[in-house]
Amino acid sequence: MTPFTLEATQGKARAGRLRLAHGDVPTPIFMPVGTYGTVKAMTPRELEGVGARIVLGNTYHLWLRPGLEVVAKHGGLHKLMGWQHPILTDSGGFQVFSLSQLSKLSEEGVVFRSPIDGTQYNLTPEQSMLVQATLGSDIAMAFDHCPPGDAPRELVQDAMARTTRWAARSLAVPAPAGQARFGIVQGGTHLDLRLEHIDAICALPFDGFALGGFSVGEPIPLMYELLDQVAHRLPADRPRYLMGVGTPADLIHGIRAGIDMFDCVMPTRNARNGMLFTSEGKVVISHARYRDDTGPLDPACECETCRGFTRSYLRHLHQCKEILFARLATLHNLSYYLDLVRRCRRAIFEGRFDELADTFKVGQP
Amino acid sequence: MTPFTLEATQGKARAGRLRLAHGDVPTPIFMPVGTYGTVKAMTPRELEGVGARIVLGNTYHLWLRPGLEVVAKHGGLHKLMGWQHPILTDSGGFQVFSLSQLSKLSEEGVVFRSPIDGTQYNLTPEQSMLVQATLGSDIAMAFDHCPPGDAPRELVQDAMARTTRWAARSLAVPAPAGQARFGIVQGGTHLDLRLEHIDAICALPFDGFALGGFSVGEPIPLMYELLDQVAHRLPADRPRYLMGVGTPADLIHGIRAGIDMFDCVMPTRNARNGMLFTSEGKVVISHARYRDDTGPLDPACECETCRGFTRSYLRHLHQCKEILFARLATLHNLSYYLDLVRRCRRAIFEGRFDELADTFKVGQP
Repeated sequence: MTPFTLEATQGKARAGRLRLAHGDVPTPIFMPVGTYGTVKAMTPRELEGVGARIVLGNTYHLWLRPGLEVVAKHGGLHKLMGWQHPILTDSGGFQVFSLSQLSKLSEEGVVFRSPIDGTQYNLTPEQSMLVQATLGSDIAMAFDHCPPGDAPRELVQDAMARTTRWAARSLAVPAPAGQARFGIVQGGTHLDLRLEHIDAICALPFDGFALGGFSVGEPIPLMYELLDQVAHRLPADRPRYLMGVGTPADLIHGIRAGIDMFDCVMPTRNARNGMLFTSEGKVVISHARYRDDTGPLDPACECETCRGFTRSYLRHLHQCKEILFARLATLHNLSYYLDLVRRCRRAIFEGRFDELADTFKVGQP
Repeated sequence: MTPFTLEATQGKARAGRLRLAHGDVPTPIFMPVGTYGTVKAMTPRELEGVGARIVLGNTYHLWLRPGLEVVAKHGGLHKLMGWQHPILTDSGGFQVFSLSQLSKLSEEGVVFRSPIDGTQYNLTPEQSMLVQATLGSDIAMAFDHCPPGDAPRELVQDAMARTTRWAARSLAVPAPAGQARFGIVQGGTHLDLRLEHIDAICALPFDGFALGGFSVGEPIPLMYELLDQVAHRLPADRPRYLMGVGTPADLIHGIRAGIDMFDCVMPTRNARNGMLFTSEGKVVISHARYRDDTGPLDPACECETCRGFTRSYLRHLHQCKEILFARLATLHNLSYYLDLVRRCRRAIFEGRFDELADTFKVGQP
């Protein structure tokens, strides 16, 4: 049984519903990133409040801290972090390649040392699926090899082929009850390679498919062009996930190209750094112009931050490096992102998504 | 009209009610410290949730950041920080003496430079009252001179005499509508000086009286002995406030001696450092013994932290330096403090405060 129902389309844009072990997820959806079993600065209840219905957990980080023993003792990641809705876990591959200086790649997998205590870990497709089984996520990602954005064509082809072999090995590990599995398409910025890899990965019996290796340093217009060419080639009856993307404009573009799911640290990380997304454009809260600004952060936003506090107060909290700033800023940015995908979904149902997308471009980040 | 009603007593312990411009405050009460217009890591709504009914704002810090212009633009500190209940502001004196290396003391007041940008400030009794008027607190403290805990007797006497003169000057500034004013008794660890200064300060028409200069380095048993001797000598018909104190045990002792109000950074600061107060004693959450502990932080506590998360998860968040740790820990420690004073108040009404206090001593921090 496919866990995905398509409910409405407009052009290539889709509105659907994922049925997962811990509940339904309306799409298009944005998944806040909960690296260490917490979406930074937020409680599970607040995440529910801003409309989050699925969060992402990082296999690499959780494997290192708190470790599988602790997660297992709780009965999985949901219970550890007190989140009752669905969770998607990545495979750990992206972090191994980007964070571990000492990683050693072979056909078998990747050997790396923990940057925390130097312990040696061996991450293979099989091990990634086992770790994700212990985490108990609703969606596990196949272990892939994501090359850097500026990798030469040969390296991209090499990583593609390895990703295909690893995908088959990931699927060969028996899935725990209720866990869906997604395959990952690589191919860098080469249209022919992307199409070739779609054929290879989508031939495998995954429950959904992801585009990996985007927003890793390539020019944004190139990413948009490729998305327009490849996103809708992913199987129509299964969810499509654009990994690690992106800005609000990226989400709009991805949805227009046929993407259903997104994740990115941008709303949460930028929030902590004082960069806020609003209906009037980006707000860099440290700017002196906000010193005396007693208006709300975003007059069009209904979140607790915008209803309860002024731009001037937020700036003051930011200047004083107060924890409350990180909280209120994160709450708002996530509200903005979740509200954005909700509005897109509604617009697709009502046949006015293109209109919304065009409006959005004017003056938006 | 006195803003204080005595509702019950047991021995020297008192239960009462402060009637302030922004609402009633049941006593005994603990006031969380909101240095920069935020009780660190907490929202106003959460403070209400844990039972906080009055918070403390620091005149010195708020004067420097965000500054009076910004506070005035909001119409006062309540509106700036979104807190609708009472606020007590200190005079700024304690911070000037403890934080400003460059402070210069004279009969007029204290000249100091901002550690943030070097701007020169002139804090006098009159200026302190003006700043507190702009902050719009429900209770303003008179500007006092608090000498170090190890100050020689002559310096203590000198500071006492100056505090008395400054108290009169503070009172000479017309009070804004709805702002109560408290005088501060100094005298160090000298019983005769404490009694002498009570006579001097309590002769002035303040709405309440505070004991300053405690918990500034003197031995705790000495503080307890002095409190037993002096707290009940403060006027019975006005609220009594023990400044900057203390541990849960200090609160119990203070209440037993006749104190009505307390403030301290301990529950909030210790929380951020991983030191948690529980009904089973102190918990230092970084200890390895909590690594696999899936029990609640405090089985006797009803706060969101104890209901929703395990000790193991809290330890993990602490190890990862997650903002959520500071939040959950602060929420719990404040719940513990506010619950403690509520239990004391109930016990005084029911004539079993001594029993509660004795029970509390066993194994408590």
